[in-house]
Amino acid sequence: MATSSSLTVSQALVGRTHHHGSTSTHTDRVSLPGFNLSSLSSSRTLKSSSSATQISRKRGGVATRSSIRAAAVETLEKTETDLVDQSVNTIRFLAIDAVEKANSGHPGLPMGCAPMGHILYDEIMKYNPKNPYWFNRDRFVLSAGHGCMLQYALLHLAGYDSVKEEDLKQFRQWGSKTPGHPENFETTGIEVTTGPLGQGIANAVGLALSEKHLAARFNKPDSEIVDHYTYCILGDGCQMEGIANEACSLAGHWGLGKLIAFYDDNHISIDGDTEIAFTESVDTRFEGLGWHVIWVKNGNTGYDEIRAAIKEAKSVTDKPTLIKVTTTIGFGSPNKANSYSVHGAALGTSEVDATRKNLGWPHAPFHVPEEVKKHWSRHTAEGASYEAEWNAKFAEYEKKYKEDAAEFKSIYTGELPAGWEKSLPVYTTESPADATRNLSQQCLNALAKLLPGLIGGSADLASSNMTLLKMFGDFQKATPEERNVRFGVREHAMGAICNGIGLHSPGFIPYCATFFVFTDYMRAAMRISALCETGVIYVMTHDSIGLGEDGPTHQPIEHIASFRAMPNILMLRPADGKETAGAYRVAVLNRKRPSILALSRQKLTHLPGTSIEGVEKGGYTISDNSTGNKPDVILMGTGSELEIAEQAGVELRKEGKAVRVVSFISWELFEDQSDEYKESVLPAAVTARVSIEAASTFGWAKLVGSKGKSIGIDRFGASAPAPKIYKEFGITSEAVIAAAKSLL
Amino acid sequence: MATSSSLTVSQALVGRTHHHGSTSTHTDRVSLPGFNLSSLSSSRTLKSSSSATQISRKRGGVATRSSIRAAAVETLEKTETDLVDQSVNTIRFLAIDAVEKANSGHPGLPMGCAPMGHILYDEIMKYNPKNPYWFNRDRFVLSAGHGCMLQYALLHLAGYDSVKEEDLKQFRQWGSKTPGHPENFETTGIEVTTGPLGQGIANAVGLALSEKHLAARFNKPDSEIVDHYTYCILGDGCQMEGIANEACSLAGHWGLGKLIAFYDDNHISIDGDTEIAFTESVDTRFEGLGWHVIWVKNGNTGYDEIRAAIKEAKSVTDKPTLIKVTTTIGFGSPNKANSYSVHGAALGTSEVDATRKNLGWPHAPFHVPEEVKKHWSRHTAEGASYEAEWNAKFAEYEKKYKEDAAEFKSIYTGELPAGWEKSLPVYTTESPADATRNLSQQCLNALAKLLPGLIGGSADLASSNMTLLKMFGDFQKATPEERNVRFGVREHAMGAICNGIGLHSPGFIPYCATFFVFTDYMRAAMRISALCETGVIYVMTHDSIGLGEDGPTHQPIEHIASFRAMPNILMLRPADGKETAGAYRVAVLNRKRPSILALSRQKLTHLPGTSIEGVEKGGYTISDNSTGNKPDVILMGTGSELEIAEQAGVELRKEGKAVRVVSFISWELFEDQSDEYKESVLPAAVTARVSIEAASTFGWAKLVGSKGKSIGIDRFGASAPAPKIYKEFGITSEAVIAAAKSLL
Repeated sequence: MATSSSLTVSQALVGRTHHHGSTSTHTDRVSLPGFNLSSLSSSRTLKSSSSATQISRKRGGVATRSSIRAAAVETLEKTETDLVDQSVNTIRFLAIDAVEKANSGHPGLPMGCAPMGHILYDEIMKYNPKNPYWFNRDRFVLSAGHGCMLQYALLHLAGYDSVKEEDLKQFRQWGSKTPGHPENFETTGIEVTTGPLGQGIANAVGLALSEKHLAARFNKPDSEIVDHYTYCILGDGCQMEGIANEACSLAGHWGLGKLIAFYDDNHISIDGDTEIAFTESVDTRFEGLGWHVIWVKNGNTGYDEIRAAIKEAKSVTDKPTLIKVTTTIGFGSPNKANSYSVHGAALGTSEVDATRKNLGWPHAPFHVPEEVKKHWSRHTAEGASYEAEWNAKFAEYEKKYKEDAAEFKSIYTGELPAGWEKSLPVYTTESPADATRNLSQQCLNALAKLLPGLIGGSADLASSNMTLLKMFGDFQKATPEERNVRFGVREHAMGAICNGIGLHSPGFIPYCATFFVFTDYMRAAMRISALCETGVIYVMTHDSIGLGEDGPTHQPIEHIASFRAMPNILMLRPADGKETAGAYRVAVLNRKRPSILALSRQKLTHLPGTSIEGVEKGGYTISDNSTGNKPDVILMGTGSELEIAEQAGVELRKEGKAVRVVSFISWELFEDQSDEYKESVLPAAVTARVSIEAASTFGWAKLVGSKGKSIGIDRFGASAPAPKIYKEFGITSEAVIAAAKSLL
Repeated sequence: MATSSSLTVSQALVGRTHHHGSTSTHTDRVSLPGFNLSSLSSSRTLKSSSSATQISRKRGGVATRSSIRAAAVETLEKTETDLVDQSVNTIRFLAIDAVEKANSGHPGLPMGCAPMGHILYDEIMKYNPKNPYWFNRDRFVLSAGHGCMLQYALLHLAGYDSVKEEDLKQFRQWGSKTPGHPENFETTGIEVTTGPLGQGIANAVGLALSEKHLAARFNKPDSEIVDHYTYCILGDGCQMEGIANEACSLAGHWGLGKLIAFYDDNHISIDGDTEIAFTESVDTRFEGLGWHVIWVKNGNTGYDEIRAAIKEAKSVTDKPTLIKVTTTIGFGSPNKANSYSVHGAALGTSEVDATRKNLGWPHAPFHVPEEVKKHWSRHTAEGASYEAEWNAKFAEYEKKYKEDAAEFKSIYTGELPAGWEKSLPVYTTESPADATRNLSQQCLNALAKLLPGLIGGSADLASSNMTLLKMFGDFQKATPEERNVRFGVREHAMGAICNGIGLHSPGFIPYCATFFVFTDYMRAAMRISALCETGVIYVMTHDSIGLGEDGPTHQPIEHIASFRAMPNILMLRPADGKETAGAYRVAVLNRKRPSILALSRQKLTHLPGTSIEGVEKGGYTISDNSTGNKPDVILMGTGSELEIAEQAGVELRKEGKAVRVVSFISWELFEDQSDEYKESVLPAAVTARVSIEAASTFGWAKLVGSKGKSIGIDRFGASAPAPKIYKEFGITSEAVIAAAKSLL
């Protein structure tokens, strides 16, 4: 492990770096950023120096930027740089024109990041535009998702069918493939859904983790079937978000050498110069996080610096690399560059014209010059050959390493091994009472034997969440083939990293865990799981006041309701072993819909009437002594309170009542059922209904109806032993019985 | 501004540091951490050296800890150190005994942090135990809140009435003053509510900001009425949380020189050695964040090192200081120290006995030795005299600076200036249509003139959230007297910093802003606002699909419902100017209940029938052509959809229907009304009810009833111009009319 506090920012001055054959002269092009440059395409060339001149910028008082040396650079022949300039300006103007047409969007970032974007997609990355899902592609994440026109322009040039010219013209319009932020579920070629800042870099950490894990697990000395990089562009906004620090701390800890992040250091955020709120030394922080840091001082036109930095980054294999690329936001716009006004609004007709003049761009909107088109056209053939080569390699692999290949194939195709469900433990009413968090661990460990893609862990609560896979060791820098991920106390990054894992390969089944109340720390990532259709399994224990003494800061109240309201996520609260196994079955099957399992700290008995099949319906009768679908009263509960409802049912039946007890483990699954089924569980004619759940009653009115009663907790919790809190808060079978009687 | 990336960890070797008069010899006490020390009270004394010896620890591969030099130390007379040892062990055993009695809790931190705790509360901090709210007290925050027995023990020794011996014996029991985590609303002397990791350090940043702001605004060359420090203890868990990095980046940016944070560097978290997930160099990161960093290598017995570090920290006035204190978790426990097993569980009888023997502690549980009691007893008189002195100073100030004194007094007493409500803007149906975010800005700017404690800002969206106070400049390092706070893209820290501001002085009215959807990033802090009863105003704009093109990542859907389910928070969604002004009135008046104002990006018309008085009831009729409280149908809406409901009402009335239109701006306020009032708005007999809200319908069943219909959005949003999305999603008056007709 490296010594980083001594700040030996090792910046090997790398040798020949570019991608297009040899250069005969070393020239170093230095341009000042963005104002009234009469012609960028004929950039001034100066005699070589081995490092770039530092660009002087107005940065009130912050003098920290000179300690990181820049990488050495080499340059290309003039004809080649002309073509690159053309391509870079094509990217800039596709962004300008699309934002202008939509009269909405963010032109500033694409204009500043076009050079790194061009170099990545045209010179560095391996991908197959005609099969965006080819397994061994390099991954790219635009963490600064508002700059999505950069990525749409690049996908367009690279030949992805998802972004044709007409799609660019439909930027930000209803039903288009080019929404306002990158969405993997709308646009093939987009790996992850970004926009909410900081998520993307954490997703990228998850993608890089996936590669490192799969490579360690499946590569053989004679066959490297897993071998790709993960690239990411993040901006000042991402850097400020806590999630980015969490994720990058883990990336450093894990030594994700194939993660290369470009920090678009443009000094502008929405409120103006970053000087007003962001004067830390990002370089130093990343050194502290264990990253290799390189500074490209001229990101606007310093193509060779960018190339050299990437080469250097690849040479550092034991650490992730941050390439700080100093750029000018809105580069090329004579009056708006380097200001917040170019961040998030169209330039306006006259400024578009001025920018065209300034950058020497005579073309009509959305025009791609022929030579640029021609230049990029090779990616289709190249991509096909990358894939063919890899397919051949894998065919060989499959012959030699049959078992490994089967496992690997399951991960990269998403096809679950036949019979995996049979691995789930079987519980009966005779099984010993246990906390659902413990039953969950039994399920996880059973599934791990059959599901090669199951991987995950906890945010420093593995021994409380009960999430360790006993047959595996820890995923660590030196043991990346293992499957227990130690996220530390970093819930938000944990969720986003799991999103990255889930989107890396369809057969990955990432799970992660913390106390249910701390979903508050990771909700933004969980929402993106739901939105981007990644079937992450959230194992959330200590799901109520049942956790006891830790008190109200640790006791979830509104959390169940808050997730029931969230689209495309399954909120499951199992009541015993059968329901826990059922919840895992549902969670594993729902690969495009994340699941939250709310699990108890306290022991629960296994109830007669619960079943895996019932779980799949979301709400189902667990006991009933009524006939003709006409119970006197319906009692409903979830999780740890289902047994309370059942006890109340037993008592009421003793008094001669016809009582149905219903488990509502997942409202979403119940909602998906037919009206007939719903009526069979909750007949409209029966209005005497009582619910009990140790949580906010918010939302239950829908199930208990206008005349029903809901027993729950519409206040914060308290610090005391759990049974005492249950009693004081009235979460008891006596309360259910009293409520039922009041309705009869 | 300092150059930090060069890592000039300036560590002035300070001179005489202790607190108790002079020492005649310099001796340096070095003890190895925690195992089988036969007697700590007779600590080995060695000949002096000017810096502490580095303790060698098992820290697999991480060799980054030697670059930060330790502070110079001096020591006390043996008799004095004996007394300190006694006091420190008293703290340790109060924690051990309380956890043991409760059979629940976290003894490890108090055992390790007792020395710094003792020094802070006995030697350094100014406070008045008999008036825990004395304005100019030093503030202390235990960010690692699970270690609360440390703080309870200290409050007990210091003479706070809130923590008597019987309270210690009721640790973690129902109704006690000593809950499982520190709760300001339960225990006087506790400044903020902690437990969820990372929140406390961010609260501390808010407290230190408050001091810096008030000092700059009110101190005079001849009268420093504001002058206190903010101390904080945070652990490895806090350090891993993203919120801590966000907050500490801001603290560095703002140069909060009177913030002194102790990092309890004990290398243990719940899952074991921090080596498994946390190997970054915290020192280096904090250098990058612009902090002064000191390392105390022996936090277990190195009292003088701790004292020297605090002295040095105070000498650095332009930067916050992080004192990394290397401790042994569970120090003194022969078999459990330095392991996760001592983190969060009682030691158990035999280990308690062994620890008593090991630390030479013959006393019964909860015993405080007489000499320790006597020593600490001076704080009552000392505290009273601090306060008397300050009162006298303030009386002088009041005479000389009448206006300033009145403003200041309003802030520190919480008494709002008479007639403040009159400052709210008045809107009529003739007022020009406007977005509620703009109307909100008018309200904020009007209020700022009359409310001296109004302070706040946005997470880099000031120009979108419309939150700038035009009469003030930016709160910055050099202009801390100003009131516009620039939080950068750090939502989570923003919320927690506002909690700190709100809890600093009851007259502070902190507000903060971002897009409503990004409450997901700060929800944990918002929940603590609600729990700890701080009236933070959350100005949340772009509150629906009405934001348009940015698409589903930026469009809130489930957020309104998710906050309606949260206890003790007001979720307000005003429909126009009158309701926006009313929402601010409610928000300002509710000083113990935070408010969320969900505000539109798009223009809305001012409706007839809306009113400030109506807002205060939460739900109220804005138009009605029915008689006898018997409308044919009740239409309900909130915010931007209220005008849609009203339009539908107008149309239906044209067709002869008796239609009531109700604004449900705040469900919580409506819930607080009498049954009679509720019946007057929603008569039980009228079951034809339709709601419309551009959000999840979750929860509306309670208001529309079993037979009613809810129009809303139970899916994620889309990227397109807002009117298009409204139309495609059916959020239209036509849909309301159709639903109403289906019920008639």
